Amino acid sequence: MRITREEAERFDREDPFAALRAEFALPGDVIYLDGNSLGPLPKRLPERIAHHLSGEWGHRLIHGWSESGWIDLPRRVGVRIAPLIGAGADEVLAADSTSANLYKLAAAASQALPDRTTILTEERNFPTDGYMLEGLARLATTLGGRLNLRRAPRAALIDAIDGTTALVALTHVDYRSSEMWDMAPVAAAARAAGAFSLFDLSHSVGAVPVDLNGAGVDLAVGCGYKFLNGGPGAPAFLFVAARHHARLISPLAGWMGHRAPFDFSPDYAPAPGIDRFACGTPPISGLVALECALELFEGVDLALLHRKAMRLCDIFRGEIEGLPGVRFLSPANTGMRGAHVALAHADAASLIAGLAAQGIIGDFRPPDIMRFGFGALYLRHVEAHEAGRRLAALLRETGQR
Amino acid sequence: MRITREEAERFDREDPFAALRAEFALPGDVIYLDGNSLGPLPKRLPERIAHHLSGEWGHRLIHGWSESGWIDLPRRVGVRIAPLIGAGADEVLAADSTSANLYKLAAAASQALPDRTTILTEERNFPTDGYMLEGLARLATTLGGRLNLRRAPRAALIDAIDGTTALVALTHVDYRSSEMWDMAPVAAAARAAGAFSLFDLSHSVGAVPVDLNGAGVDLAVGCGYKFLNGGPGAPAFLFVAARHHARLISPLAGWMGHRAPFDFSPDYAPAPGIDRFACGTPPISGLVALECALELFEGVDLALLHRKAMRLCDIFRGEIEGLPGVRFLSPANTGMRGAHVALAHADAASLIAGLAAQGIIGDFRPPDIMRFGFGALYLRHVEAHEAGRRLAALLRETGQR
Repeated sequence: MRITREEAERFDREDPFAALRAEFALPGDVIYLDGNSLGPLPKRLPERIAHHLSGEWGHRLIHGWSESGWIDLPRRVGVRIAPLIGAGADEVLAADSTSANLYKLAAAASQALPDRTTILTEERNFPTDGYMLEGLARLATTLGGRLNLRRAPRAALIDAIDGTTALVALTHVDYRSSEMWDMAPVAAAARAAGAFSLFDLSHSVGAVPVDLNGAGVDLAVGCGYKFLNGGPGAPAFLFVAARHHARLISPLAGWMGHRAPFDFSPDYAPAPGIDRFACGTPPISGLVALECALELFEGVDLALLHRKAMRLCDIFRGEIEGLPGVRFLSPANTGMRGAHVALAHADAASLIAGLAAQGIIGDFRPPDIMRFGFGALYLRHVEAHEAGRRLAALLRETGQR
Repeated sequence: MRITREEAERFDREDPFAALRAEFALPGDVIYLDGNSLGPLPKRLPERIAHHLSGEWGHRLIHGWSESGWIDLPRRVGVRIAPLIGAGADEVLAADSTSANLYKLAAAASQALPDRTTILTEERNFPTDGYMLEGLARLATTLGGRLNLRRAPRAALIDAIDGTTALVALTHVDYRSSEMWDMAPVAAAARAAGAFSLFDLSHSVGAVPVDLNGAGVDLAVGCGYKFLNGGPGAPAFLFVAARHHARLISPLAGWMGHRAPFDFSPDYAPAPGIDRFACGTPPISGLVALECALELFEGVDLALLHRKAMRLCDIFRGEIEGLPGVRFLSPANTGMRGAHVALAHADAASLIAGLAAQGIIGDFRPPDIMRFGFGALYLRHVEAHEAGRRLAALLRETGQR
């Protein structure tokens, strides 16, 4: 859509999320279009952390674990994430990194189906997801077992699910193109074949409405530092559908997933519910920060938020569309994409640098991709418009050289 | 040793670490003897974190990864830990939790010796260490391979190492008794049998001098929140002797351990050195806190610090020794124990509660164990004396009931 500055200003006036902008620390001279890599700082967060440090840790010392509720934080944060992803409150746990969580769930699924030998993923899945699954398969086969990772092209993925498949592991919103999987058919095909389905929600959670239970998804993981704004390296989360809790055991069987961690029993007995997927001592300050950041999603209608994000993307896109040398990687269909716009251009690296020099922060992905994320909790329509205008100007300059 | 209050005061006046006390936030009405569970808050830490949040994340946003050096933090923290454990600066990495690190290294060692089928540990190793090793063995065997966990009594451990052993995994200082392994003979026996040795340093690092390379140890892990004072759930660390870097591959093969994570290559190629044991995106605020806490070890002579800790333990112990119903679990030999005192008593739980009511914080471990940790960076000799006196009084009351 091509709109005028005035129209963008009108969208801002009518924006139901306009007041949330003031909740984020965003430097005045910056248009921040990289919230898909690292969300901005919620302004309320430093005070919360200061209280955690001095009021809780400093004052209560070891008793903070009970008196300040630290021990419950992985679940409390899970409860806040659950409505963002269509999960039950007892199905989500904040823990470890996205990569580690993926490993835990993929290994647990493989263990539950020991006669099956294949984990299936998409060729162009986020690299670390592939590395982790490969690492799991390498461990199993090196130690004398059988497990392999099969990578299928997107279009052939569902047909590649068969009786050897233990797990289908995909990323919901592609980190490059922003293309989104329709989860339900994948989950259904996996289920029909007796396999588990797993989605990595790192680029979807907080950006697009996700309905894991509605789609019949078995397992999911996701990250806390992108659209959830939990800070660099914030704790990640995992989802296990309640119907699988009793059946799956994490290979990273740490004490925090034990039925009674403080009994210090020599034998491992997994906790009855989602807690069994915890591993070591949880990172409290990271969880306090993530819990605080998640407060900003209270009462937010995710469908409306996604609609705003799509409009921001389209306003930006409208300024650029038709310029020579640009190829959009993101689908046009707003129902099939996440909240970032990806475009390829031979001079992508220098264009991103040129924008950065003007305070417009996007990111470059080799070899020739520019990505621009639109965090709809905090961005204004005029920013999307202005950023598009500036990129268009740079593209015209580049074209004339 | 039984001393007078005046003698304790003299020790305080002569204490080379006396000035460090002021670096820690310790409530005035508390004698904190649980630094072996959670170290106290370094006073300089809240300001450092506030700067990280507002000055780095809030101001620089995604550029903090390079401009604020976040990406280097796992190694920078490792460089600070290295001299505390007798490691080279390129042999230590801060990452994940102790449990997850143990899994990574145990799995990597097992993979490197695929014809060997046994991981050997001590019967009374810290429970989570056993759980993790058991989880690894369960994964391998469920998926059709061979790996089992063998638990030997302490006295029979070295003799249990044989040609089937892939890894000997022990905890350096026992979390209950405080008993310390002499690492060199274990490492030598493992090496002679062609196996790897691994020590969990959670209860030793920052409390006792550790010389991993001097003892010929292959692998180690440890925790950041006990004697390192990094905060609840602080990032953990791992050590891999440089001679093994090229040979070992982590099964948790996340992008941060890739040779070129930002190339987003679909194929995993491990980084050449210790970095290959990184997994997901590192928890930056936790690392900033741990780095800050580690500054307090700058210039600290660990042998002297351990000597002070042993004296604190012995002053405390001197008040209690000989009282009826008390059984000391910690060895008398100061060269063979860590910086906490463990004692068993039938009324341990109520004694710990009675002390807590007087502001003296120790901890209770079921069924009947009291533990008192002596963080020599911040504790005073008069506190050890007073705590011992108070516990003795409670013991006498208990005995009279």
